[in-house]
Amino acid sequence: MTTSAQASSLRHPPSFGVRLHQAMRAHGPLCAGVDPHRGLMQAWGLDYTVAGLERFAMTCAEAFAGRVAAVKPQSAFFEVFGSAGVAVLERLVADLRAAGTLVILDVKRGDIGTTMDAYAEAFLGKDAPEPPDAITLSPYLGYGSLRPAIDLAHATGRGVFVLALTSNPEGADVQHAVLHGQSVAGHVVAGATADNADAVARGELGSVGLVVGATVGDAVDRLGLDLAGMGGPFLAPGVGAQGGTVESLRRVFGTALPHVLAASSREVLSAGPSVAALATRAQDTAAALAEALAS
Amino acid sequence: MTTSAQASSLRHPPSFGVRLHQAMRAHGPLCAGVDPHRGLMQAWGLDYTVAGLERFAMTCAEAFAGRVAAVKPQSAFFEVFGSAGVAVLERLVADLRAAGTLVILDVKRGDIGTTMDAYAEAFLGKDAPEPPDAITLSPYLGYGSLRPAIDLAHATGRGVFVLALTSNPEGADVQHAVLHGQSVAGHVVAGATADNADAVARGELGSVGLVVGATVGDAVDRLGLDLAGMGGPFLAPGVGAQGGTVESLRRVFGTALPHVLAASSREVLSAGPSVAALATRAQDTAAALAEALAS
Repeated sequence: MTTSAQASSLRHPPSFGVRLHQAMRAHGPLCAGVDPHRGLMQAWGLDYTVAGLERFAMTCAEAFAGRVAAVKPQSAFFEVFGSAGVAVLERLVADLRAAGTLVILDVKRGDIGTTMDAYAEAFLGKDAPEPPDAITLSPYLGYGSLRPAIDLAHATGRGVFVLALTSNPEGADVQHAVLHGQSVAGHVVAGATADNADAVARGELGSVGLVVGATVGDAVDRLGLDLAGMGGPFLAPGVGAQGGTVESLRRVFGTALPHVLAASSREVLSAGPSVAALATRAQDTAAALAEALAS
Repeated sequence: MTTSAQASSLRHPPSFGVRLHQAMRAHGPLCAGVDPHRGLMQAWGLDYTVAGLERFAMTCAEAFAGRVAAVKPQSAFFEVFGSAGVAVLERLVADLRAAGTLVILDVKRGDIGTTMDAYAEAFLGKDAPEPPDAITLSPYLGYGSLRPAIDLAHATGRGVFVLALTSNPEGADVQHAVLHGQSVAGHVVAGATADNADAVARGELGSVGLVVGATVGDAVDRLGLDLAGMGGPFLAPGVGAQGGTVESLRRVFGTALPHVLAASSREVLSAGPSVAALATRAQDTAAALAEALAS
C-alpha cells in the first residue's frame, strides 16, 4: 500500500534541489571533484591512457560513493581520450548514481536553439545515455539561451549550475561588465532567482544553482549581487588547494552560506590512490566544512 | 631533394588561417553544417538512433568532402547519443580530413587552468584522438582564460573561433555589456586582434577566428567593433534558413567581408538525404556566396 505522498513522489520524483539539500545535511557540504589531469594521474602511478583513466575513475567511485553529498567529474579530462574516455565517464556516472550519490557533471555547455535542446537532452533528458543529476552551463549566449536545459531539468527532476562569477582573474572582463545598470553576473543571478521562485515558495531549495568562486573577494558586494535571495544552491570551486578557505566562503556568501556546496578536487584527490585514504580525506573534509560553516 | 621552403613547411605545417584562406579561394566561402537534429533525421527517413546518426554523418561526409571550404559538425547532436555518438563524430572528422576538407568542430568549450589545458589537448593537441582543424570556444570566463587553446592551436597549425557577437536575442545581455568603456564583444575582438598580429604582419590570415552572427543588425557599429582589423576569419552562422542574407552579411561585416566564412546548415541539409543533391546544393550555395560577396 502506498500513501498519497508516496504516490505523488512516484509521479514526481523529488527535485534536484530537494535531493541536494538532503544529501548536504546527511554528508556535509562537500562536492568531491574527479579531475584526472596528467600530473595527478602520474602522481597516482597511473599511465595517462584510457586504462589509467578507468582505474582513476573507478577508484574515485569506490572512495566517494555513499560518503559525500555530491561528486563532480570534470568532462574535459575524459573528453581528452575521445569517445573511449567519454565511455569511462558514463560508467563513473552510473556507478555513483547506483550508490545514490549525486553527480554534478562539469561540462559547461551553452548554445542556442536546437543545439541547446540537444545538449539538454544529452545530459538532462529522460532518454539521456547516462544522465547525471545536474550539469554546469555557460551563459555567454545569455541566460535566456539556456532555457531548454533549465526547463528540461525541472521536468526530469534534475538540476543545473550556471556560471555566474568565477575566481580566475580574466573572468572579470566579461562577468563584471554592465548593461542597463546590471552586471553580467547580476543578470545571471537575476535569471536563477526567477527560475527558483516556485521552489522557494514551496519552502524548498531551487534546482537552478550558480557557480560562484570561493575566492572572488569583494566582487559580490561591489556588483550588488543578492546571493541569499537566489533560492538555489551555489557550487563554489576553489576550496583548498586553489586558495579558498572557510573565511573566504563566509566573506563571499554571507547569509547564503547554508546553500553553498564547496567543491574540492586537488585537496581531496591528493590523498589517493588508496581508496581508504581518499574516502577518509573526503569524509574529514566534508565534516570540517560542515562544522566550520555552521559555527 | 627538398627545397628549403619545402623543408620549412614540413617542419612547420601551414597555419589554419593559411589553409582556410586557400580553401575559401578554391571552394567559395561556405562552411557546411552537419546538424543531425531529431526533426531533420526524421525528414531524411532515418531513425533517431546511433545507427541513424552514423548514416546521416557518412552521407554528409560523402557529399561535402572535397567540395566545400569547410564542414562544421555540431557536437551536441553527437553527444546526445553518448560515447557511441562521439565515436560517430570521430569517424566523420577523420573521413573529411582524409579528403583534405577542413573541419571546424562546433563544441563551444571554455574553462580555466588544467581543465582548459585538457580541452585544448582533446581537440587541438598533437595527440588528440581525432583532431579537427579548428574548434569553437566560449569566453564567459574571459578571453584570457582561453589562452591554453589559442597557444596550442598556434603550435599545432590548428585554429579556433571564439564566440564574440551572436544573433540570438538573449546574447545581447552578456555581449553588449560594457566594462571600462569596452563591450564584452569588443573585449573578445581585441583579444583576437592581438593574437592575429603576427600572422597579419606576415601577410597571412590569422588562425584565431571569431563567431559573429549574420543577423546582428547594427550591433557592430553601435559597439564600435573593428572587424576589418581583426586579422582572422569570421564564422557567420545564420545564413539561409535563419534569416541571414548576402545583404545582412554586407551590413554586418563591411570591409571584413573577404574574411567571412558563411555557415549554413538547414538550407544545405534540406537537400538530403541524396548525396548527389546535397553535394549540388552545397556547391551551388558556395558559388552563389562567392559571386554575391565578390560583386
